[in-house]
Amino acid sequence: MSQPLINKFVVVGIGLIGGSLATGLKQRGACAEVIGIARKSDTCTEAVNHGVVDRAYTSLCDIAGELGQGDVIFIAVPTLSVSAVLDEIKSCVADSVTITDGASVKGSVQRAAEAVFGVVPPQFVLGHPIAGSEKSGVTAANPNLYENHRVILTPLENTSTQHFDLVTRMWQVVGAEVLSMSVAEHDEVLGATSHLPHVIAYSLVDTLAQDIKNPNIFRYAAGGFRDFTRIASSDPVMWHDIMRANKTAILQSMDLFIDNLSRLRSGIEHEDSSYLLSVFSRAKEARDEFTLMLAKRHAAAKED
Amino acid sequence: MSQPLINKFVVVGIGLIGGSLATGLKQRGACAEVIGIARKSDTCTEAVNHGVVDRAYTSLCDIAGELGQGDVIFIAVPTLSVSAVLDEIKSCVADSVTITDGASVKGSVQRAAEAVFGVVPPQFVLGHPIAGSEKSGVTAANPNLYENHRVILTPLENTSTQHFDLVTRMWQVVGAEVLSMSVAEHDEVLGATSHLPHVIAYSLVDTLAQDIKNPNIFRYAAGGFRDFTRIASSDPVMWHDIMRANKTAILQSMDLFIDNLSRLRSGIEHEDSSYLLSVFSRAKEARDEFTLMLAKRHAAAKED
Repeated sequence: MSQPLINKFVVVGIGLIGGSLATGLKQRGACAEVIGIARKSDTCTEAVNHGVVDRAYTSLCDIAGELGQGDVIFIAVPTLSVSAVLDEIKSCVADSVTITDGASVKGSVQRAAEAVFGVVPPQFVLGHPIAGSEKSGVTAANPNLYENHRVILTPLENTSTQHFDLVTRMWQVVGAEVLSMSVAEHDEVLGATSHLPHVIAYSLVDTLAQDIKNPNIFRYAAGGFRDFTRIASSDPVMWHDIMRANKTAILQSMDLFIDNLSRLRSGIEHEDSSYLLSVFSRAKEARDEFTLMLAKRHAAAKED
Repeated sequence: MSQPLINKFVVVGIGLIGGSLATGLKQRGACAEVIGIARKSDTCTEAVNHGVVDRAYTSLCDIAGELGQGDVIFIAVPTLSVSAVLDEIKSCVADSVTITDGASVKGSVQRAAEAVFGVVPPQFVLGHPIAGSEKSGVTAANPNLYENHRVILTPLENTSTQHFDLVTRMWQVVGAEVLSMSVAEHDEVLGATSHLPHVIAYSLVDTLAQDIKNPNIFRYAAGGFRDFTRIASSDPVMWHDIMRANKTAILQSMDLFIDNLSRLRSGIEHEDSSYLLSVFSRAKEARDEFTLMLAKRHAAAKED
């Protein structure tokens, strides 16, 4: 039998993102062993019992001595907890080990790594799988979560090619398409296409629940509303962290959105039909094009 | 064979909403004949060729002489075109014919009927099926569109019980649950749960397409974004009409939303963790409760 791509795969934070990559690699024979690290020992027990990891510990330093070249540490904790994991890595992990992460914001991870290490070490490949679910926790782990999804890696000047290649191949094994861009572009693009929609969805549901004084308000909402608000069921702590970590880009895209919405409000108030029709038609066209692009990508993936 | 519930079912405006009710009634043997009325003769031909209607005309008055008690006219044109149909009805339809509509705003239909008739006639039962799709047009007609969906009727003081009962049974035949409330409450509830989300979705997609100067912006959006923006693919003319027809309620709910979003913007700017966590948690809880309610309703419908 050929050697697996990765020897020991260590997942720090055994939730949806980390658990899904762990089970995905394991199921495809791409790693020899999966080791889980979780703050709470209950989570460790649960992860082992669910077969998500082979063994689990409450501290990375408990097993860091075992790790070397060919091993991968995947940091899959909420964005603002990455810094504490990097502290641990600095204290006990060899510089031959490949390190990567899955945080939704890359600028804050880069700043955290610079604060801990001075410069981001060559072994640390910053990354972000664009996949998720409104479900969370170790029981939501899904080995096929990353199939046909994109993973963005944001290599820095001194990122080692060897570690970058291993992380790229790791994601490809679980069915993802790997792309590479700058930290700044990543944070701007995600701020607009993911973080902004989440803020909006949370705010809309909160407006209906808190500000509109009609106890029947949700009773008459239908399937369209359910789809529209699905992302408002996402994990509050995770999204709190993202708001803080990508503050600048999120505020910028919120301001553009609030401006656009205010112009639309004024168009409605003044019954400016041509303005309303032009915005709605332009948006429909852009959204239809986007759906077509997703459909083509999916079809191309199936043909491979 | 027992007599069908409705003799002649006349659908004015053969799009998704009208075509779906026509084929739904026909397939369930609930009407003897379906007659379609469309402004364009091409639509008439297409509707007959697709089997959505038995025959079709470009003017209601062409066949109004045939209609009497036991026949139903369903007005399924864009909201702001209802007034023109009511003009035609006044000129050529007998007061024994049951009339109802499917417009998303009820206040504007009431005002239009009052402008045409002085008072809304007892034969006219205002209604709104809470169902739809981002698809539109006669080819999108779906006989099961209304299964497990709600229909809100908004009877007025002088609405006839006989006509109200026929419209109620008509909707029940195609699987809908019929509820009744005031015109004002309907427009407030729908303004918040349907019209506001549509404005937001259109505005978000337009912001990304027009205001953010990054040609890659849609390339990295994923499935969550597709779900969130599905309603931005809705028909622009239909939604333009709704914005004008329900202007007051929509502006009110937009103001509440913009206030809520601005508070959230300030919470992000000042890194007010406890505020962000409280909004996100409250929204998640309300949205999870809403989903549970929909699931229970769906399960109850299956048991019937």
